[in-house]
Formats: sequence, C-alpha cells, structure tokens
Amino acid sequence: MTDLAPPSPLRPSSDPAPAARLAVSAQARGTPATDLAGVHAWYRDAGRRAYTHVERVELDALTGWRRDPATGDIGHHSGRFFTIHGLDVHLPAAPIPRWHQPIIDQPEVGILGLLVKDIDGVPHLLMQAKVEPGNRNGLQFSPTVQATRSNYTRVHRGRPVPYLDYFRDTDRHRVLADVRQSEQGAWFHRKRNRNLVVEVNEDVEVLDGFRWLTLGQVHELLAEEDLVNMDARTVLSCLPFTGPALPADGDGFRLALLRSCSGDAGSLHPTSEILSWITRMRTMTDVHTRRVPLDGLPGWRRTPERITHQDGLYFDVIGVSVRAGGREVNEWTQPMIAPRATGVIAFLVSRIGGVLHVLVHARAEPGYHDVVELAPTVQGTPATYDALPAEARPRYLDTVLTARPGQIRFDAILSEEGGRFYHARNRYLIVETAPDTRAHPPDYRWLTVHQLAGLLRHSHYLNVQARSLVACLHSLAAAP
Amino acid sequence: MTDLAPPSPLRPSSDPAPAARLAVSAQARGTPATDLAGVHAWYRDAGRRAYTHVERVELDALTGWRRDPATGDIGHHSGRFFTIHGLDVHLPAAPIPRWHQPIIDQPEVGILGLLVKDIDGVPHLLMQAKVEPGNRNGLQFSPTVQATRSNYTRVHRGRPVPYLDYFRDTDRHRVLADVRQSEQGAWFHRKRNRNLVVEVNEDVEVLDGFRWLTLGQVHELLAEEDLVNMDARTVLSCLPFTGPALPADGDGFRLALLRSCSGDAGSLHPTSEILSWITRMRTMTDVHTRRVPLDGLPGWRRTPERITHQDGLYFDVIGVSVRAGGREVNEWTQPMIAPRATGVIAFLVSRIGGVLHVLVHARAEPGYHDVVELAPTVQGTPATYDALPAEARPRYLDTVLTARPGQIRFDAILSEEGGRFYHARNRYLIVETAPDTRAHPPDYRWLTVHQLAGLLRHSHYLNVQARSLVACLHSLAAAP
Repeated sequence: MTDLAPPSPLRPSSDPAPAARLAVSAQARGTPATDLAGVHAWYRDAGRRAYTHVERVELDALTGWRRDPATGDIGHHSGRFFTIHGLDVHLPAAPIPRWHQPIIDQPEVGILGLLVKDIDGVPHLLMQAKVEPGNRNGLQFSPTVQATRSNYTRVHRGRPVPYLDYFRDTDRHRVLADVRQSEQGAWFHRKRNRNLVVEVNEDVEVLDGFRWLTLGQVHELLAEEDLVNMDARTVLSCLPFTGPALPADGDGFRLALLRSCSGDAGSLHPTSEILSWITRMRTMTDVHTRRVPLDGLPGWRRTPERITHQDGLYFDVIGVSVRAGGREVNEWTQPMIAPRATGVIAFLVSRIGGVLHVLVHARAEPGYHDVVELAPTVQGTPATYDALPAEARPRYLDTVLTARPGQIRFDAILSEEGGRFYHARNRYLIVETAPDTRAHPPDYRWLTVHQLAGLLRHSHYLNVQARSLVACLHSLAAAP
Repeated sequence: MTDLAPPSPLRPSSDPAPAARLAVSAQARGTPATDLAGVHAWYRDAGRRAYTHVERVELDALTGWRRDPATGDIGHHSGRFFTIHGLDVHLPAAPIPRWHQPIIDQPEVGILGLLVKDIDGVPHLLMQAKVEPGNRNGLQFSPTVQATRSNYTRVHRGRPVPYLDYFRDTDRHRVLADVRQSEQGAWFHRKRNRNLVVEVNEDVEVLDGFRWLTLGQVHELLAEEDLVNMDARTVLSCLPFTGPALPADGDGFRLALLRSCSGDAGSLHPTSEILSWITRMRTMTDVHTRRVPLDGLPGWRRTPERITHQDGLYFDVIGVSVRAGGREVNEWTQPMIAPRATGVIAFLVSRIGGVLHVLVHARAEPGYHDVVELAPTVQGTPATYDALPAEARPRYLDTVLTARPGQIRFDAILSEEGGRFYHARNRYLIVETAPDTRAHPPDYRWLTVHQLAGLLRHSHYLNVQARSLVACLHSLAAAP
C-alpha cells in the first residue's frame, strides 16, 4: 500500500502535524516578542481591576445553601452546583483499610476549553486571568473557558460564557484534544471535566482579561508560584506534545526527555505490558464506597465554623462569603474544602537507556470513576503522616524530600482548583534518580513521556496530580 | 534517533510481531492438517460425554436462592453469584425516554482467558467444548478459561479451574490482550469481564474437552450456527489482528477489508476525530438509573413461573433446574433471562476510497459503566418493534432486513452467554452497502477495522455485540 496515495475521501488516521506545530510554540520563549515582562505587567494590571474579597462565614450562614434536616448534607437550594455528603470508604488492601470522610458530589461533566490559533506562524493559546475564591493570590492563569454543563447546554439562562461556542460546536474547527478527566479523587466523588483543545483559523476578538501566549510562555509561568491554575495544567497535559526535534548535542537530561517524548527510542516496557498492568491493577484492587449522612460521620466533628477531623488532619469543610469584582460585581456564599497543610506531589524520573522514564503509581482513591488511576510517584501531605501509622507513609516520600539540589528538575508551589478548594497548595517536584530498573513494587511502573501521552488521548488513565506534572515535564523540553 | 539502536534495557514500545503471527494462524485453514472434519468428530464425541438436562422450574422452587421479603429481589443464599433486581431507567433523549426492567447485578470482574501456543510454527488457540444451561445445543466452543473473580483469587475453595494459573500469573508469559469489557448492557448492570489472551512457550497438557485450533479454524466454526460462544467471540475480537499481507490481486471486498485491517491506507475520519466524537457522545448523553425493588416493578408481572412484561415483549426472568454431566455430575438451580424472540445484530460496511469502513452506533444502555459504547449499526429484536411506536424502530434495520443476497457478507445465528441467558440467540449479519459518506446521524460514524482494533486495546469502547461482529469481520480476511 505504500506506493498507493490514499484515494480522495481518506485522510491519514493519525496526524503528527499538530504536535510538531505545538513544539514550535513550546520553543517560542525568550525572544523580544515573547518576553514575559509584558505578560507580567498585563497580569498585574488585570489584578488591579479584578479582585475577590473572601471572608470565612459560619456554615449555617451560607445564603442559598441548605443543610438537609435528615442527613446534614449541604446542598444548594436550586439543586444545582454541588453537594457535600459523607462517604464510607473501604479499601481492604490499603494501610488504612477503612475510613469516613466528607466529599463533594458534582456529577455534571463541565468543560475546560483551550483555544489555539496561529499568530505569525506560531500557535498561541488564549489564556484567561481568572479570579477564584480559593486562590490565595486572587488571579491565576486559566484556560479560555471553564464552564459547567449547564452553561454548556444552555439549560438555564445566565451570562453567556465568553468563547464557549468554539467548544459547543467543534465540527467547524480542528480538535487537538478532547477527553474526560477526573479531578481530585480524595475530595470529589466521580467528578470529571471534559478537557477540550480547539484550533481555529478565523479572527478571534481578545476580550478584557484574556491574552494570547505561546506554549513556551505558559511553560515559563508554570515554574512560578501559584500562577498557572489546575484547570490550565490539566488541559496543557492533554495537548499532543512530542517536543522539538532532537538537538545534535546538549544537556543529557534534556536529550533524554526529548527521546522520551518522541517514542522512537523505545521504552522499558512495551505499551501492551503497561495496558495489561493497568487492567490487572483495576481488576484486583477492591474499593467499596457508600454514601452516608454528613451528620454523625464517624471521626468528624461539626462546629458552627467548620466540619473537621477529630485529629485535626486532612481537611476542613468551611463556609466563605465572596465578593468578586471586575467588569461586573458578583457576591455569593459557598462551602469549600480547606486542606490542613501543603502537600507534596512528585515524579521520580530516571534516564534508562538514555530515555527519561517516569515512575508512576497505580493509586486507588474513593472518588475515581474506575478503581485506580495512574498517580505521581509521591502524592501526600507530610504533616499528616506524622500522625498516622508508619506503613501509611508514602513510599518514596523520603527519597523526594531528601533529594540533593542537583537532582531537582522542577520545584514550584501550585494551587488546586480555586472554585472548590480554599488555599489548597502543593509543592510539585520532578526529581531525578539514578537508573534503577530492578523489581519495583507491583503498583509502580516506569513509563516514558510518550507512553503517558498515549494514555492521555483516553479518559481516566492519569489522575489530576499526574497530569499537572506531565505539563511541568513538557515545560522542561524547551532549550534553556 | 533513527541511527541509534535502542540501548539494552529498552524495547520497542509497540510490537507488530504477534499480529503478524496471528495472521499466519488465520490463514491456516483448509489444509489436510487443519481440515475441520476432525474437529467436528471431536465435538460430536465431546457432546456424547458431556450433557446438560435443563428443566424449567418455578421461581420459588430455586434451591439455594431466596426472594428478598422486602423487595422481591432474587439472590443466592451465599450472597455470591448474582442478584436480579429492578432498575428504573431514564434516557431523556431516547424514543422511549423512561422504563422499568429487571436486571442482573453481578459486580465481580471475571476472566475470559485464551491460551495461545505455537505448534509447528503456527499459533494455535486452546479452545474448550463447554456446556452451559442456556445453550439450546448444549456444547459450544468457549475460550480456555471462563472464571469468576472468586475462582481467580481463590477466595473460596472449590474445584480448581483448569489452566487458570496461566491467567493469574501473567508475568511469566507474553500477554497479547488484557482488557476489561462490558457485557449486555440491557440485561447486566455494569457487568464486565477481563478478556485476557496469553501466549506460552512451555508444554501444555491438553485435558479432556480441550483442543488446539488455528485461528483460521475458529473463524470457520464462527460461520456455523450456535457453535462459537459469546465468551469466545469477545476474546477473539481483542486479539491483535492486522490480517495477512495484501495480495497482489483478488476479491475487491477482501482487498478492502485487508486495507481496513492494516491502517496504512487511512480512514474517513482521523482517529483523533473519532475519540472526540466518543467523548462528546459520552458527555452529552444523559442516562439515569436507579435500583428499585423487583416486586411491583411497573409494567412487569410475576407469576410462579416467570417475571414477564405486561405486553409480552423483551424478556422473561425464569427458573431452571440443571443437571450437567461430563467427567463429574453437577446439579443446581438458578434464575435466567429468557429473551422473547431472536434479535438482529448487524454491521453495515462500505468500501470508502477502497478501504472497508464499518458504520458504528454510539449507543446508551442502562447497564454500561460509562454512558455510551460503540454498538453495531443495528441491534434489536424486530418482533419487539412491531409493538412499539414507529420512532423506536432502529435506524437501518430495514436496510439490513431487505439486503440482497450479494450484499450479505456474513450471516449466522449465534448464542449469547449460556450461563445467564436461556436460548438467547441473535442473527449476526455483515451487510455491504454502496459508499455513502454523506452526513450521517450524529450518533453514527464510519470507522476502519484498524480503528476498531485500536479502541479494543482499551476497556469499554465497543459493546459485546460489536465485539462479536469484529470477530466475524476478521473471519472474512482469510483467502477463500
């Protein structure tokens, strides 16, 4: 068939062009046209014109929200948005095999949409400077659109979401990524959002609070504290990304990363083995969850201000009153999840045969749609483990916390979703270790970035923390 | 990187060798060594030594099963096996937007395992001649292993399942396919089985009731009425299959099918568009189900002999008493689902640009794990639609039923799973139509066989009826 050109109605089943063009965009940084000084000035200016005032209020003082008299569950009067109820979790094989916790139930699939457009031959991403009540610093860079399904289907009226039509009618444009992905499985019960990247050719009006950035610029912002929000990071991770062409020489780490992105150099495990491993982990892991009333949840106490664990661990459920301003002023109240401490989220990476591999963990969380997802090597809150049995301490946590500076390839404090989580911050790390292909625990595997990218074309393989780290890994592929 | 051989620990991420060897096995038919006469003689002999006597009994006469006094739900005394309860289904966009029905709840993920081994340079499949109470004809060809998770994890004692260890410890062998797939979403609530194909090099003892067959022989058996069971068909569909090399000339249909299997010639839609379409269908389709008591299920009546729909449509829940014999004798009773009529399950296929494409339907069923799966072009029971509103009649049903003989590429009556379904038979058809790439309804798309194979490496994309038809399509790839 190789000498036969495809007849007219046919197109190649896979198209490497978008990844190649995005590699050009990832390299576009540090030139006069892409200098970040202007972006920072614009961000500071946007911060002066858009603000949030957030005050803690008592849970029973939340206007528009009601506490169910029978269960104590907290829900909106309209039945919309989300509910907080209790969950009884049974994970027989885990160090802590059973617990109860509050959890957010938000069954709608929303949209996280990113618009891409060529400007002077370089693809640019339309980023938004968006305020969220849970952001410690107010504004963060978010994707073009963050919309609920109610916005999306126009079931109810309300202010139209700017640029939403590009993501409602995708047939008119080129779709670069379109996949449903989970969010925090420890805090959300089966929440997932549609991550959608759409490339347009037509003129796009740039509204106040929006700005075209190259992928390289966004990658630079990613290294700054609390600047690129979780919704942006998850969408970035789903972009087709193979990295720029291999340089003739250069930094050994970067070369190994580029080989890992391209996939041509192979991998420690063929992809069929990785898929089989995921199937086995999802088949053999037992997770049982049962919705229970928030009132009387074992181990948790309710005060007027918060619902809190008896040991002061994990997180609180709190109430906030929000006044957000920009072009228009909005006021509302809502419950939020407020973690008790900053977590650590880390990939261990290693050059194996000259190709960078990432050690991923097949992790069960109560809120996952399908038992287990691939998580970072380390994901946890060190302050919590001091109070728990030693076997609950995450494997590799101390490897990450005691890494020498030369091993640390990425290190930034980043925020989780500011619409539901209050000051939820994690230290995201990429730490290089010596090659070690010896037998690893059965729930860990070394994968290449190319293999992670293949999984990210499908839903529910990588958890939101791993997706953030994939975006961070991509950011290391550009020439320094 | 192309001039750099992969360093030692690395292997190619994808390996085309298993598919090439299976293509050799698919071509192995019709030679003296692969003549089916011996297989048929062996099958008849096995049928003389293994038998089932199945008698209908009253539902309350099922030994070991109990009817829950509060709900009427039927479950086993041990809490194992499965339960039949009621389901309230709400599918707002469907022609019949709401209904109630009994449904089987069997939450365990079992194993359908197929053993593959080279014999004289040709891969062979270890097939079992297995009796099931729901089989009209007793014995059918099944995969090497059909095991529940309780068998698999050895939670309880019992006779060991032959060959199970090959599928419990896959690290010692080469895994050709390993994926969890749904079963009938109209009759099972979130049932899924792990479809596992393992290739071994070591000697394997062939037990009574088992026989090595080439893929080509199994493909020939597939064309015979009620001979290759559903469990075998679904595992066959998950085999890596690219078909034999393209012949220099030959039947235009077969050439188009081989091009479709190989993927080199392209497709009407790039795979990224197909994945985006699936994401959109899964995001935009509403399915709400709620477990309700079997007693008092609206529209259904309970008599001592059966639970039946008031219009005599769909299916009955019945009780059977089984005496099965072979090397050992087993007696038991159980409830079963007995459909009221034979269904039609069909792919419309078309040569588009010289490449065979299959028209698949994004179909919602109440029992699916994830909203929508890809289904055959037509899937339904004609006798039912005469009693339903005209808009409930499946699109393309009449196209299939009025096809001229020359259009019909495959046509065989095949059985559904005989362990749960009583005399459940469908007419499986592959019908060729003229190329028509005009706008199709939004829930249908033309895919190549190569694209279907890519989806079958992952869980829950193709429903069990579509998987059966994929196995049937593969069977048409061998030279006549």
